[in-house]
Amino acid sequence: MAVNLIPPDRARLRPVAGVRLGTAQAGIRRPNRKDLLVIALAEGTRVAGVFTRNRFCAAPVTVARAHLDEGEQIRALVINTGNANAGTGERGLADARATCGVAAQLLGLSAGQVLPFSTGVIMEPLPVQRIAAGLPACIADLKPENWAAAAEAIMTTDTVPKAASRSVPLGGAEIALTGIAKGAGMIRPDMATMLCFIATDAAVSQPALKSALQFASDRSFNAITVDGDTSTNDAFIVMATGLAGNAEIVVEDSPEFVALRDALTEIAAELARAVIRDAEGATKFITVRVESGATRDECRKVAYAIAHSPLVKTAFFASDPNLGRILAAIGYAGINDLDVSAVDLYLDDVRVASAGGRDPAYREEDGQRVMRQSEITVRVALHRGHELATVWTCDLSHDYVTINAEYRT
Amino acid sequence: MAVNLIPPDRARLRPVAGVRLGTAQAGIRRPNRKDLLVIALAEGTRVAGVFTRNRFCAAPVTVARAHLDEGEQIRALVINTGNANAGTGERGLADARATCGVAAQLLGLSAGQVLPFSTGVIMEPLPVQRIAAGLPACIADLKPENWAAAAEAIMTTDTVPKAASRSVPLGGAEIALTGIAKGAGMIRPDMATMLCFIATDAAVSQPALKSALQFASDRSFNAITVDGDTSTNDAFIVMATGLAGNAEIVVEDSPEFVALRDALTEIAAELARAVIRDAEGATKFITVRVESGATRDECRKVAYAIAHSPLVKTAFFASDPNLGRILAAIGYAGINDLDVSAVDLYLDDVRVASAGGRDPAYREEDGQRVMRQSEITVRVALHRGHELATVWTCDLSHDYVTINAEYRT
Repeated sequence: MAVNLIPPDRARLRPVAGVRLGTAQAGIRRPNRKDLLVIALAEGTRVAGVFTRNRFCAAPVTVARAHLDEGEQIRALVINTGNANAGTGERGLADARATCGVAAQLLGLSAGQVLPFSTGVIMEPLPVQRIAAGLPACIADLKPENWAAAAEAIMTTDTVPKAASRSVPLGGAEIALTGIAKGAGMIRPDMATMLCFIATDAAVSQPALKSALQFASDRSFNAITVDGDTSTNDAFIVMATGLAGNAEIVVEDSPEFVALRDALTEIAAELARAVIRDAEGATKFITVRVESGATRDECRKVAYAIAHSPLVKTAFFASDPNLGRILAAIGYAGINDLDVSAVDLYLDDVRVASAGGRDPAYREEDGQRVMRQSEITVRVALHRGHELATVWTCDLSHDYVTINAEYRT
Repeated sequence: MAVNLIPPDRARLRPVAGVRLGTAQAGIRRPNRKDLLVIALAEGTRVAGVFTRNRFCAAPVTVARAHLDEGEQIRALVINTGNANAGTGERGLADARATCGVAAQLLGLSAGQVLPFSTGVIMEPLPVQRIAAGLPACIADLKPENWAAAAEAIMTTDTVPKAASRSVPLGGAEIALTGIAKGAGMIRPDMATMLCFIATDAAVSQPALKSALQFASDRSFNAITVDGDTSTNDAFIVMATGLAGNAEIVVEDSPEFVALRDALTEIAAELARAVIRDAEGATKFITVRVESGATRDECRKVAYAIAHSPLVKTAFFASDPNLGRILAAIGYAGINDLDVSAVDLYLDDVRVASAGGRDPAYREEDGQRVMRQSEITVRVALHRGHELATVWTCDLSHDYVTINAEYRT
């Protein structure tokens, strides 16, 4: 089902010095599948994270945030699928802390040095016993080469594992970045997506790492939507072990910082687009690019109005150039002083609308030709300024309804 | 497909003194169906309207607004289905004005005394010739008894015509209110819904009529959503002929004003709920009631977050009490200081969540029992204040995708 998305090539996923990964089958929800992952980090690794803004955020999000804020050296991450530990109240918090405690004991750490992450069904108690029973196998499996297995272990309704890797010459050294992500539904990140973990061996200060993470997340996981539902469990974590041998990056405008930030952004955007390509029921990958707006925020509003409209999304599913629905979405996006007669709408290279209506040169067969493609760019020119924003999304198909009507059964 | 919605009983639709209606088959989009309606109003009738806030509003909305603002006595409405005359630029405006001109000529009026309304496909030129050719038949058909035929003539993807009637003793007279509405998709009114026309023979001043209309629209068409798509053509028009014999209602706090306003609100809410019952692909009618909020606005935000969530809507379609999805929607509704541990969630009489998680007494079979019903109330208590809001919506089914993927074919 995934749109032009192939599984990552294991040989191209570079190990990151100081990072080891181990997986296990803990039977958390279903038997016979990897559902538990431990990421162990070398001493001195710097870790930064952004998390969902959902007020009903999951217990592990609350605990991970607290452990990061307490400032202890983070040395391990524990990630389970099958159960989100969200909407679980006080018991959920205790369960997340217990998970950290067991992992810490096995690894010779304190509980505050472990970050917990969960994804799966909401409002069911976390089976801590099964996680505890599975952790020794994860730890026995810890290896730097396990990125591909890790990408598989965090999948839920994903059909394709998502991983990406880059290397960048930087400050006299060659640094590696490798990351994994999961997510296919309940995707409209408001800060970060479901789960994404990217590691690098670059030496970089904590503030510079956090700044690069913010930049990357705004241009990747904060620019995608499947269904407009912001998850309870979103987290995007970046880990820098500092073992590459480069001079530590401290200054945020330096060429080295920009090189690291841009490499991080590239990987994050590739993984974010992979989430959309693998979105529940998706048959088309849609790029919505809104340009010449007065502010980046108004461009994002218009892009999300188009990307969230069920009418627009079903028209893409049908390959039907019923493009008035896109005009309607632009019109209700919330720009109160929008001059619709100035708006241009393009489907790839085809100008569809101008001067408040159908473009005189537009022909239905041109719209039809573009709509049949599996990758389509919707481009809107507002002609109000010089800002722009891009959002990636997918169509709304019968399979989306089927998958989400049957998820728990 | 409609959920517990039966066609209106013709015998119960009361004629309104001073209002005549006539329909015709003009072949605007498809042959052999009523698609053109004229409503003729007695001299002295007061007319007020609320319209879509979509910036890409349709040409007839622009023209109707202008004719109302110019203050000429409105004496006729012309409504066509099959074509929305939206996203049609300057030509669309000329077409809407031409429609008014032809009707005015046939009725011995000026064009400014006629309001045009269109609904149907967006971004196609309005076939004015066919409308002009159909108008004489409409006018020949004008009768006070034609409300049921009028309700049929304005249907598009509606499967059941929508009409309602009330009579109210008022100021020594018995006044009548009768209305019709259409709409089944692209429904998330921001001011009013697709199309609704309600007439009364009450004598009421223009400001009091406008005030009653605002009150009624906030509690009816501004409280429903199918897909979150605010249409380009929404209009809710109320007409008061003043022929009932009551003393003119002028004071907005008077018992007579309140009686009229509440009767208008009742009809409007009945028609708004009928739109949801007949929503595209709907199999369930969902009432979302959010109470004990600090403001009405925050209650509406939470209610709409639930009502728009595709994950919540597909769970209703599946009769699956996957109620964590409702918690997630509450969490991302935009109340930044929400204390989730204070929130209670009920499905009809069953308390599902409390203290930030699943209620200790909740049993899956209770949730399952309610989810199987065709009418369900989701009730959220925020425990932050004394305000409340209600929104009506439906589930998201395979048929919604089918209907919207095939609308133009």
